[in-house]
Amino acid sequence: MSELVRVALDAMGGDFAPAEAVKGAVDAVCHEERVDVTLYGTEDAVNAELAKYTYPKERLHVHPTTEVIEMAEPPVNAIRTKKDSSIVAGLMSVRHGENDAFVTAGSSGATLVGGQLLVGRIKGIERPPFAPLIPTANGPLLLLDCGANVDARPTQLVQFAQMGSIYMENVVGVKNPRVALFNIGAEAEKGNALTKETYPLLAALDNINFTGNIEARDIPFGAADVVVTDAFAGNAILKMYEGTADMFKQQVKEAIYSSTRGKLGGLLLKPVLGKTFKKFSTSTYGGAPLLGLTGLVVKTHGNAKAISIEHSIEQCVTFKEKRINDQFREKMHLVDHTRKEQKS
Amino acid sequence: MSELVRVALDAMGGDFAPAEAVKGAVDAVCHEERVDVTLYGTEDAVNAELAKYTYPKERLHVHPTTEVIEMAEPPVNAIRTKKDSSIVAGLMSVRHGENDAFVTAGSSGATLVGGQLLVGRIKGIERPPFAPLIPTANGPLLLLDCGANVDARPTQLVQFAQMGSIYMENVVGVKNPRVALFNIGAEAEKGNALTKETYPLLAALDNINFTGNIEARDIPFGAADVVVTDAFAGNAILKMYEGTADMFKQQVKEAIYSSTRGKLGGLLLKPVLGKTFKKFSTSTYGGAPLLGLTGLVVKTHGNAKAISIEHSIEQCVTFKEKRINDQFREKMHLVDHTRKEQKS
Repeated sequence: MSELVRVALDAMGGDFAPAEAVKGAVDAVCHEERVDVTLYGTEDAVNAELAKYTYPKERLHVHPTTEVIEMAEPPVNAIRTKKDSSIVAGLMSVRHGENDAFVTAGSSGATLVGGQLLVGRIKGIERPPFAPLIPTANGPLLLLDCGANVDARPTQLVQFAQMGSIYMENVVGVKNPRVALFNIGAEAEKGNALTKETYPLLAALDNINFTGNIEARDIPFGAADVVVTDAFAGNAILKMYEGTADMFKQQVKEAIYSSTRGKLGGLLLKPVLGKTFKKFSTSTYGGAPLLGLTGLVVKTHGNAKAISIEHSIEQCVTFKEKRINDQFREKMHLVDHTRKEQKS
Repeated sequence: MSELVRVALDAMGGDFAPAEAVKGAVDAVCHEERVDVTLYGTEDAVNAELAKYTYPKERLHVHPTTEVIEMAEPPVNAIRTKKDSSIVAGLMSVRHGENDAFVTAGSSGATLVGGQLLVGRIKGIERPPFAPLIPTANGPLLLLDCGANVDARPTQLVQFAQMGSIYMENVVGVKNPRVALFNIGAEAEKGNALTKETYPLLAALDNINFTGNIEARDIPFGAADVVVTDAFAGNAILKMYEGTADMFKQQVKEAIYSSTRGKLGGLLLKPVLGKTFKKFSTSTYGGAPLLGLTGLVVKTHGNAKAISIEHSIEQCVTFKEKRINDQFREKMHLVDHTRKEQKS
């Protein structure tokens, strides 16, 4: 068996911490024998949750921390001042090579800032994007960037495209993934200043399968495998997908409960409808990796339950075994900066 | 009875022209006695369609044109060279006061360029936004801009907010509409350069009910009445809504047909599910007006059927009767330009 993949888990992050984080860690070490998890969080609270479960103790540890970074805290200040928070301590363990990956359901801003300042970027990477896999009618689709770089530059989108292609081929197993640029029309000359400048740069890349622009309405149908955009539009796409799906589920339920005939029909349809709705749940594929750092950092939804935490931990195994970061270094067209890999 | 509202209809625009356009015009004059419609299009083709129907002939006319602007044509060039196209002739009739409004399912780009060049903007309006009403769980929501200004400036968004508020209050009848700025977080300081600069300007307006930022996932639930954004994000929001709704409909249908039990349940649920899906169809509220022009220009979906065309024609009645353009001039904080209302 290959060596263990060591994951630092933020036990204090997200709406249901520490209970769901701890349960997710327990499920991960029970179901995946290649992972070793360390819980970063308030000792008493974490141990109280751990006491509820039976699990392989040699692969699940606790690293006590005394501070917590709240969701609404200004990220830069939080990272600088709360040195003994679960996020800072967890990220530092990746920086120092004690862990391979850090997983959190906590503050996106603190994770982004901390990931760059404490773990550091791969040499030549301009900005790390959040890259969630989203479910479509045609399988998973990697959408990047979804929240890190709101005013992105064309050269950053060019890097997102290459990282996304490597990730999709190796972690998800899609051969020669179709990489598309999100735009408001199919034609090359459509869009805003950013997409007009980015399109020819993507078309000129020899290391991705660029299939042109993709419009939003084709995203839920999975018309591409990797979709590249700035974080502002990416967030609109991701959150509209989630919001519309949730709204439809609610409306279908209300329609079913509106009459006796509806209730009977709903009872008959429950198994298939449940399966359909589950297929398009955001928790299906775990968290969003922050790609392009020297270690792996994964952010899950703030309202993540144990199942999302578990999937997020498990995806770290493939990431390490496929040597994704080495592939980024080898296969991407990275500008040869003279400086070393960036740390704070 | 008040005077008739005269509508120029592009009989050649959209995927199903001229058949659906002509049928929509016939339905409009039959169902709404306050409208007078003139069909702009190829004479023989339009008359062949008209021959299929009985309708009040004194309120439905044909203005023959010889050219057609195709969907993919570069708009500026098309508007300049195809003087006898249905779009140019229809817009010119509004410019010259022969008609109050122009309705088309044709090229968005040509409609936008032609609307500004041929009809002209209201004095002080910087850029006209496309403003569709979209269905939510909580009633209609006005989303602007949805395709006209991809690299918008803060002052333009400030005008969109005021126009949207006036439109929503008068055309849709929502008292003191909640106006929100689309953003990737709820806090005032979130977002990109555009939203950060726009937020305080909206907060300072005394003529709208600004309720702060709205995130994408709250849009399908109708957490605001008017949502202001740039056309790039607006297009992402609108098209993700349509695409996700269509994908879910398809998936629910497939789930139903996957088993005998499912088919039986589907049969029982058909009436209520059909109603739910129809409620969130984009054709519910007709077309998207291009706000801020000296006349009214309405763009409907390229795949619009007769029902959308009819609704688009009918919404011109409220627009004129409520004197929306006069209200824009009176109630908005418009910069006092020295130049006259812009025409080409």
